[in-house]
Amino acid sequence: MTAPGLERLALNTATTKRWTAAEAIEGCVRAAIPAVGLWRDQVAATGLSRTAELSRAAGIAVTSLCRGGFFTAADAHGRAAAIEDNRRAVEEAATLGTDVLVLVCGGLPPGSRDLPGARQMVADGIAEVAPFAAQHGVRLAIEPLHPMFCADRAVVSTLGQALDMAESVDPGPASPNAVAPAVGVVVDTYHLWWDPQLFAMIDRAGPRILAFQVCDWVLPLPADALLGRGHVGDGCIDIRAIADAVTAAGYRGYTEVEIFNQEVWDTPGDETLRIMADRHRQYLT
Amino acid sequence: MTAPGLERLALNTATTKRWTAAEAIEGCVRAAIPAVGLWRDQVAATGLSRTAELSRAAGIAVTSLCRGGFFTAADAHGRAAAIEDNRRAVEEAATLGTDVLVLVCGGLPPGSRDLPGARQMVADGIAEVAPFAAQHGVRLAIEPLHPMFCADRAVVSTLGQALDMAESVDPGPASPNAVAPAVGVVVDTYHLWWDPQLFAMIDRAGPRILAFQVCDWVLPLPADALLGRGHVGDGCIDIRAIADAVTAAGYRGYTEVEIFNQEVWDTPGDETLRIMADRHRQYLT
Repeated sequence: MTAPGLERLALNTATTKRWTAAEAIEGCVRAAIPAVGLWRDQVAATGLSRTAELSRAAGIAVTSLCRGGFFTAADAHGRAAAIEDNRRAVEEAATLGTDVLVLVCGGLPPGSRDLPGARQMVADGIAEVAPFAAQHGVRLAIEPLHPMFCADRAVVSTLGQALDMAESVDPGPASPNAVAPAVGVVVDTYHLWWDPQLFAMIDRAGPRILAFQVCDWVLPLPADALLGRGHVGDGCIDIRAIADAVTAAGYRGYTEVEIFNQEVWDTPGDETLRIMADRHRQYLT
Repeated sequence: MTAPGLERLALNTATTKRWTAAEAIEGCVRAAIPAVGLWRDQVAATGLSRTAELSRAAGIAVTSLCRGGFFTAADAHGRAAAIEDNRRAVEEAATLGTDVLVLVCGGLPPGSRDLPGARQMVADGIAEVAPFAAQHGVRLAIEPLHPMFCADRAVVSTLGQALDMAESVDPGPASPNAVAPAVGVVVDTYHLWWDPQLFAMIDRAGPRILAFQVCDWVLPLPADALLGRGHVGDGCIDIRAIADAVTAAGYRGYTEVEIFNQEVWDTPGDETLRIMADRHRQYLT
């Protein structure tokens, strides 16, 4: 059912925010897009086991579940609640048949200026969830976010930092021929394109790359900086160069399109998927 | 004329955008702030030689001139014009009696996705201006800007990258006892606070730190991301920790307050300088 050129394309459902998981799966079938990265709220709207059934019945692979993380909190109670929520996310990922849980790690706790402390909370949280995830056959994918989200969404800001963290929790074999590690990273073009160390760190990451997400950097930034992402090709990122580096590092998974953008969200989903497919063929095949 | 606790405080005149250079110098005298970092447009409003006379007569030190840079351009003509403009900036700095020219290096040329190419243009531009600057006794201070400005303002995004660039142009002695290098860096808390490598890179920078600028990261980001900066203490940056590291690296110059913020610009300058002085005493002495 996959169309030529789309074999490695996946829809991350943040791109079609108004769709439930069921609608996203149906949309992928219509667009001949073979895989989907799911968000928990959209899965909840359809129902967890029903989403799992629908994707299996449709032959749509689930690349990842977004998201766990948000480990930083002002007190022990908040941090324990975060661990508990991450365990639920691990179980949901396993039920959905994906072995990748994406972690958006959390920003500074309210009122805090202790960035090293927040980073330690993240490392501690991942270390605490990792054994539970491994028991469920789910790998944890640390997503470094653009530094402009350091204060409020993710104190993990570079691929190098994410790799340091992954290796500290899971020092296991990371040679190209080894089994995929239990803790790895997400490479997202939007968050990482500016990093002078990016290509060296992609090479270093090797089998720790558990997900590859793409969208473009479009100027000017909108009023809500979270929503400034564009379709592949609409901005200034050399996405093909990054994709080639990710492939050279050994990644063979899907290329997930994840776009936070009000205008994209206001576009009918089928039209968005058509643009995605066109751009994927133009820039990434 | 300096008040206790303010010996190392400087006003960067971007903070008092509505003031000419003359007004900023007079304001510093009233506020017992001993130094000023000047912007070229405000100097032009007062006149170059008149600004130099006024600061000397008032006993206000000129810490730096902002800014040279913007080396990236779509064609050779544009790049040559940038070099020429930087030479003028060097001459202006020398006339003003400061030995530091701050470089905001420029973003991607319009329509370009070639980030490595843009970075090479910056390195080439600095190399071309450096001998001229040295002849005039002016040092070039590369300012890494926050990665959210990579596309449109500065492809130099981290302190480590700025140091690599400075060392490639000017490999000269960088030991703590050596003469200050001809090409160095600016450490600005707003642009660099998120960097996991920041403290290691400040230590590495040592005598290459030619300017130290401070302001705070305030949420939410405003519609114009350029204008989201706050007074020291209003946001989430541990500014004292960064200041201590800069001092430990050997920096003995001024702490320049540089705030781009519409609300601050709409505040009477004397009131802004009063807040600056209060916060400096509270957080940085």
